[in-house]
Amino acid sequence: MSRRIPISPLSAQSFAPYGDVLEAEGAPDKLINDGKCRRFHDRADLDFGDGGRAGVSIFHAELRALPYEFDLIERHPDGSQAFVAMSADPFLVIVSDGPEAQPKAFLTNGKQAINFHRGTWHGVLTPLSGSGIFAVVDRIGDTANLQEHRFDAPWVVVA
Amino acid sequence: MSRRIPISPLSAQSFAPYGDVLEAEGAPDKLINDGKCRRFHDRADLDFGDGGRAGVSIFHAELRALPYEFDLIERHPDGSQAFVAMSADPFLVIVSDGPEAQPKAFLTNGKQAINFHRGTWHGVLTPLSGSGIFAVVDRIGDTANLQEHRFDAPWVVVA
Repeated sequence: MSRRIPISPLSAQSFAPYGDVLEAEGAPDKLINDGKCRRFHDRADLDFGDGGRAGVSIFHAELRALPYEFDLIERHPDGSQAFVAMSADPFLVIVSDGPEAQPKAFLTNGKQAINFHRGTWHGVLTPLSGSGIFAVVDRIGDTANLQEHRFDAPWVVVA
Repeated sequence: MSRRIPISPLSAQSFAPYGDVLEAEGAPDKLINDGKCRRFHDRADLDFGDGGRAGVSIFHAELRALPYEFDLIERHPDGSQAFVAMSADPFLVIVSDGPEAQPKAFLTNGKQAINFHRGTWHGVLTPLSGSGIFAVVDRIGDTANLQEHRFDAPWVVVA
């Protein structure tokens, strides 16, 4: 099995098994503010589990470069996690069907946010350009809400 | 009373009566992802009221220009509302102590998101540059959750 992972453009369809793509595409659900704003309503399947609540945190991540080597994936068993880039720059989204599977890599188009469904295995936040600043909507609660897996050998995401 | 409103830079201190400034400033609460990401944890006072839940929507607003004339403010009696610009561009944040007061105008620095506390009177989403695309965290529920006020004469935000 090759350790090289190609990059696919992020789309709602390809990402559906892992989470939601949040973007201003297609018909808006509502026009608000005297018609000057299009609302795409309630697009994330948020789930904060028992005893959890929603929180907004800010993440400031180091920029990475391609080829990008990693051996760590993680998941949040108790809640969903949404990443909203605060600059209009593509970022890598790495997901996996589990510790035994080959991860997949998607690249946003600079206008897409994502929401990992509860329990989705994913790579850490990986901006390739821009500010590296993200707003994150995830579970605030008393549990650790984190499982990590380190692969025996690194994977490499290639351009 | 002049109808002209000057613009102040947005800061956590000046905005405190109205809501939260969400930004990667000062000491992070936590280092995550092998030290490569700084987490500023749970920075918004979210409130979705009775029978409400958190949702993430995408707003695509028309760009505006200065001087910016407006006569409408609104508030959400049943929940808070967070605006996260998806491009690193300043946007106007207009708030008011109520229909009888002169509104105030703040300008973000391109790296700040905001969260209006439940019930804060505010102007509509007002991007001045960039994509005009925002992620919005607000209340999903069965109530209208909207009160509007139109001033007898317009206010003008000036550079």
